Amino acid sequence: MLHKPAITQVAINETIANRWSGRAYDAAQAVTHDKVIALLEAARWAPSCVGDQPWRFIVCNKSTDAHAWQRVFDCLTGSNQAWAKDAPLLLLICADTIFSHNLQPNRWAQYDTGSAAENLCLQASSMGLIAHQMGGFNADEARTAFSIPSQFTLMAIISVGYPADTASLSPEILSREIADRKRKPLNELFFSSHWGQALD
Amino acid sequence: MLHKPAITQVAINETIANRWSGRAYDAAQAVTHDKVIALLEAARWAPSCVGDQPWRFIVCNKSTDAHAWQRVFDCLTGSNQAWAKDAPLLLLICADTIFSHNLQPNRWAQYDTGSAAENLCLQASSMGLIAHQMGGFNADEARTAFSIPSQFTLMAIISVGYPADTASLSPEILSREIADRKRKPLNELFFSSHWGQALD
Repeated sequence: MLHKPAITQVAINETIANRWSGRAYDAAQAVTHDKVIALLEAARWAPSCVGDQPWRFIVCNKSTDAHAWQRVFDCLTGSNQAWAKDAPLLLLICADTIFSHNLQPNRWAQYDTGSAAENLCLQASSMGLIAHQMGGFNADEARTAFSIPSQFTLMAIISVGYPADTASLSPEILSREIADRKRKPLNELFFSSHWGQALD
Repeated sequence: MLHKPAITQVAINETIANRWSGRAYDAAQAVTHDKVIALLEAARWAPSCVGDQPWRFIVCNKSTDAHAWQRVFDCLTGSNQAWAKDAPLLLLICADTIFSHNLQPNRWAQYDTGSAAENLCLQASSMGLIAHQMGGFNADEARTAFSIPSQFTLMAIISVGYPADTASLSPEILSREIADRKRKPLNELFFSSHWGQALD
């Protein structure tokens, strides 16, 4: 299994540093019910605007419902299917566009749903699992396949499973898998006091 | 200091369980430069669609630039100002609506920015700080005050600082502070295989 911790100027929380979007899954090792619940509890306790909790996840577990798993898998792009085929768990992530307390549009629905999804990925990482978020899927097909009400925006599919040896990967996917993790410099993302101003 | 860990069916990662949006800040204790960098590094290493990293944060540190801090503070609603006044650090969070690699709209901009913001809040929690995200602010005023380009959507202001004794809070804020943390039941947020279907 690859270990690719974030390269940071100062030490950060280990779970955050170690989380990364791996592609080599052990198809033979299912994720137990208790671990699935831990993933969802982590997402559940994310913060949200006025506590609305706008996220909805559909959990498709290959070991308990192979049909549902196949239904969500079929919505992925070919390049994601190429490696996600071995992930025992696929989750479809949706955001409720309407606040429940006043039925007005919730402009933080996607933002808050991103928080919940990140909590799930970090929880996965802290349990020795890998999670990989994918935007590459056909949202219209997924909406139809899972009868998702129009009030909800489909955001991502997340694959979760145990890491496998990278020998299971094709040469093309392997080259992406072993490539260095990269981020923009801090000063391009974070400003001090003014837009565009470098950190002290 | 209040300790209000999440109440979960199974144990989850401690940092995720312990993060919560406190309101009692120690106005006398600044956040050091290294800790600010750790907060930003945690955000920086969040995942994003095609690695775009659409988030931009403006850091306003009262101890190093009181004018900038005041400028973002002035954009908060009165009910947030009532407690955020003691937070030494305020961050303005923006999402880039356009992908940098192809200049097309990025429909994951807000979702990914939510991930980065949650990483920051978790990093804060793991360093003994509290972070509180606020949607209650005047985004138009903040855009003008910080000359934020129209391509970026203003999402939140986050307060960060060291926890203080809750004796510093007014009775009204104190009652919100000591209230139990609440979440919807797992089965309202997370479905198994089909939309609306309870978890096994």
